[in-house]
Amino acid sequence: MTPANDGLTAGTPAPAEDLPVEDLEDLALSDDYALNPAFVEMVVDAADLGNLARLRVLIEALHPADLADLLGFLSRGYREVIVPLLTADELSETLSELDGPLREDVLELVAPENLAKAIGEMESDDAADVVDDLEADRRGQVLAAMSPAHRISIESALSYADETAGRLMQREVLAAPQFWTVGQAIQHIQAGGDDLPELFFDVYVVDPSNKPLGAAPLSLLLRSSPDALLSKIMEPVTEIPVEMDQEEVAYIFDKYHLISAPVVEVGGRLVGQITVDDIVGVIQDESEEDMLALAGVSDRGRSDTIMGVTRSRFWWLLINLGTAILASSVIGVFQDSIAKLAALAVINPIAASMGGNAGTQTVTVVVRALATRELNAANLLAAVWREIAVGVMNGVAFAVVMGAVTEFWFHSPIMALIAGLAMVINLIVAAIAGMLIPLGLDKMGFDPAASSVVFLTTVTDCVGFFSFLGLATLILLHH
Amino acid sequence: MTPANDGLTAGTPAPAEDLPVEDLEDLALSDDYALNPAFVEMVVDAADLGNLARLRVLIEALHPADLADLLGFLSRGYREVIVPLLTADELSETLSELDGPLREDVLELVAPENLAKAIGEMESDDAADVVDDLEADRRGQVLAAMSPAHRISIESALSYADETAGRLMQREVLAAPQFWTVGQAIQHIQAGGDDLPELFFDVYVVDPSNKPLGAAPLSLLLRSSPDALLSKIMEPVTEIPVEMDQEEVAYIFDKYHLISAPVVEVGGRLVGQITVDDIVGVIQDESEEDMLALAGVSDRGRSDTIMGVTRSRFWWLLINLGTAILASSVIGVFQDSIAKLAALAVINPIAASMGGNAGTQTVTVVVRALATRELNAANLLAAVWREIAVGVMNGVAFAVVMGAVTEFWFHSPIMALIAGLAMVINLIVAAIAGMLIPLGLDKMGFDPAASSVVFLTTVTDCVGFFSFLGLATLILLHH
Repeated sequence: MTPANDGLTAGTPAPAEDLPVEDLEDLALSDDYALNPAFVEMVVDAADLGNLARLRVLIEALHPADLADLLGFLSRGYREVIVPLLTADELSETLSELDGPLREDVLELVAPENLAKAIGEMESDDAADVVDDLEADRRGQVLAAMSPAHRISIESALSYADETAGRLMQREVLAAPQFWTVGQAIQHIQAGGDDLPELFFDVYVVDPSNKPLGAAPLSLLLRSSPDALLSKIMEPVTEIPVEMDQEEVAYIFDKYHLISAPVVEVGGRLVGQITVDDIVGVIQDESEEDMLALAGVSDRGRSDTIMGVTRSRFWWLLINLGTAILASSVIGVFQDSIAKLAALAVINPIAASMGGNAGTQTVTVVVRALATRELNAANLLAAVWREIAVGVMNGVAFAVVMGAVTEFWFHSPIMALIAGLAMVINLIVAAIAGMLIPLGLDKMGFDPAASSVVFLTTVTDCVGFFSFLGLATLILLHH
Repeated sequence: MTPANDGLTAGTPAPAEDLPVEDLEDLALSDDYALNPAFVEMVVDAADLGNLARLRVLIEALHPADLADLLGFLSRGYREVIVPLLTADELSETLSELDGPLREDVLELVAPENLAKAIGEMESDDAADVVDDLEADRRGQVLAAMSPAHRISIESALSYADETAGRLMQREVLAAPQFWTVGQAIQHIQAGGDDLPELFFDVYVVDPSNKPLGAAPLSLLLRSSPDALLSKIMEPVTEIPVEMDQEEVAYIFDKYHLISAPVVEVGGRLVGQITVDDIVGVIQDESEEDMLALAGVSDRGRSDTIMGVTRSRFWWLLINLGTAILASSVIGVFQDSIAKLAALAVINPIAASMGGNAGTQTVTVVVRALATRELNAANLLAAVWREIAVGVMNGVAFAVVMGAVTEFWFHSPIMALIAGLAMVINLIVAAIAGMLIPLGLDKMGFDPAASSVVFLTTVTDCVGFFSFLGLATLILLHH
């Protein structure tokens, strides 16, 4: 109706309502590529006004990954308004970006026909993940609304355990017989075909029983003579067994810098491929899991309820309370000594605290080295000795510092000696425990990230308190 | 000379000396894809015997990534034997797999001509990294031994700051003018040419001033009609500015599932590309850094000396000693109260320890959420409130538990009340501090992973000791 902007309004930003789509796209993200709060507010305002046309325009300005973020930032009431507005296309891309409780929540808001259509557009790995998140009755509805071919492919993907190569892989894969030439392979791709993945990087060369023999990257294919045999130009591949744990798969991709790898079933036949873009997410998840587990956090989703988060942290804290009480009972043993000399209670926590910190350093290094396989039978002993040597050296250094501080504070050379001795004992114990606890848990098949710190601090608190108060009772009070 | 195996030796494994190369390759790795200790021992034995021919055979059985691991597992004396045996080809691939002090050490063992040749075979990003690790005089020697084109490309890569897109990118990139057809692009690739990267996934479509307009994945190129214009089939690209931090680059790759992205200089001209295989390493490094930093560990290399590790941990422990002494001085204030009632010293550490644990849970979640950008202006306030609510709920729960334990232990309802009050106070303070400390550090431009925990435990120890001993002095001893 009116000209968007003239001399008179220069300097005044145009009201967001009038912004063309390109400007909205720019506005959607702030400088750090995270969703712009101003944009989220525009969505909220449009939803409050019931302006669905406006909401559509805003949604269209977003990349699926940002749309997924938006859904996470909004409360459920707003999601109820926005999710039904999404096309099957937008849904299929956005659902792949979501996970956990948030995805389950979004799935509940989608009509079954629209959902079947959206899942039909996904690659088989993403489709299986989404179907897995559906409740049993809705799963039946959605599967029934699909083409038989699609249903079978999803059901077969779901037959593999969660977090295995079979779940991670896509079944769409480009395989070519070993006797084909480069030209034949290119013609096959140019002819298209439903079995081709949407995006792929390698042609897998297979023998007559469909076992992978090698791979030809597309860039190699394009640069080779059309008459060359695939079996001549192909490069060796690392086969991923279908039942391999995804953490293992990620390790192999990282180690050998793979872009894609063929997945084979028990007999060695090619059943799918895993591409590196799926692995990036796995690597993020696995190291996040370790990091959070070390701190005793098992919840991850933004959309977990306060009750859920409280509960998930409660158990870790309860275990810690148990160990804190156990450590306190060590102090309880020396209650009489403290009654005679209250200064002991003042210095008592220091060696224990230092042991906890030093031991946590060691535990973290070991947990990380186990996860990245930097620590193994070949270098284990050297690593154990190194940690103990570090513990001894820092133990001696801090014994001196601690002795000096105690002497300065309480003017008692004997107490300074005791504090220093307790420090060196506890830092050495911390190094040994910090090494052996995660290694032992790993050996026994437990996750070293999840419980090492609790065991460690129990040891360092008890040893810290016992060595200081015990030495004090022995030397200072019985003489 | 003798048949490798006959009926008589069945069941006896052939001595490793006689194993064909394929069997050696199998033997090199154990089931978890880590280097097999038995294989490392074979290398050590061959080196001890000075059997260089045997060492060559063993080296050839290894993938460069495993050869890099082997060099890490061996002591310097063995590296001195093995490194000179490596061909320029093996060196070029192995050096790209190494980093830190180990790479510097290996570089010292390589003859300059061989090194120049090895670097000449690397992609520009890896080559620049290696040259950057050389000491000044060797750098000059090696650069002088290179072709001028190569030298210029490395010097230009080194002109970008460490850990930026400019350093991460490879300069070899396939760009095609927007008016080309698919057929022309394919012909260009088939014609080959030195400017083409060895492995690539996308053709970047550029305008006459060399600014990227879009990209055509090779698989799309192969499936499109040869007559189609690139500008018609191309897909949008996310441009990476050359000065962008690598953590930011990794975030964008992860978020938008990119396989490769064009890197542009200030005017927007295409200067290189980053591929996802480089990003996998960055993601590993960045999350590893955060995880280790949370525990106060700054060393990472396997090959750091014991003195180096001791020193790097010493500073964190010294800071922790300072905060432990500060917390102890809080206890010192209440020395008279403890002298009157030694039981106070027994219960005193519990609330502080629980606060430290609960606060560390919050800090870890916040640090991780900041790193993955899950936490931003749009949802910050909600997240803060959620953590405080969780702190209040767990605070109340543990106040009850703590009160019950104290009553059971010391049969004093007043002491139980005090212990419970101290617990709820400290868990709420822990939630607030655990949230605000990393957010504040981040806001001020510090790394929240590196120092949050120290600040946090200072707060929770001091508040824990002060609230319990203060309340006890106030309620129990002054009445």
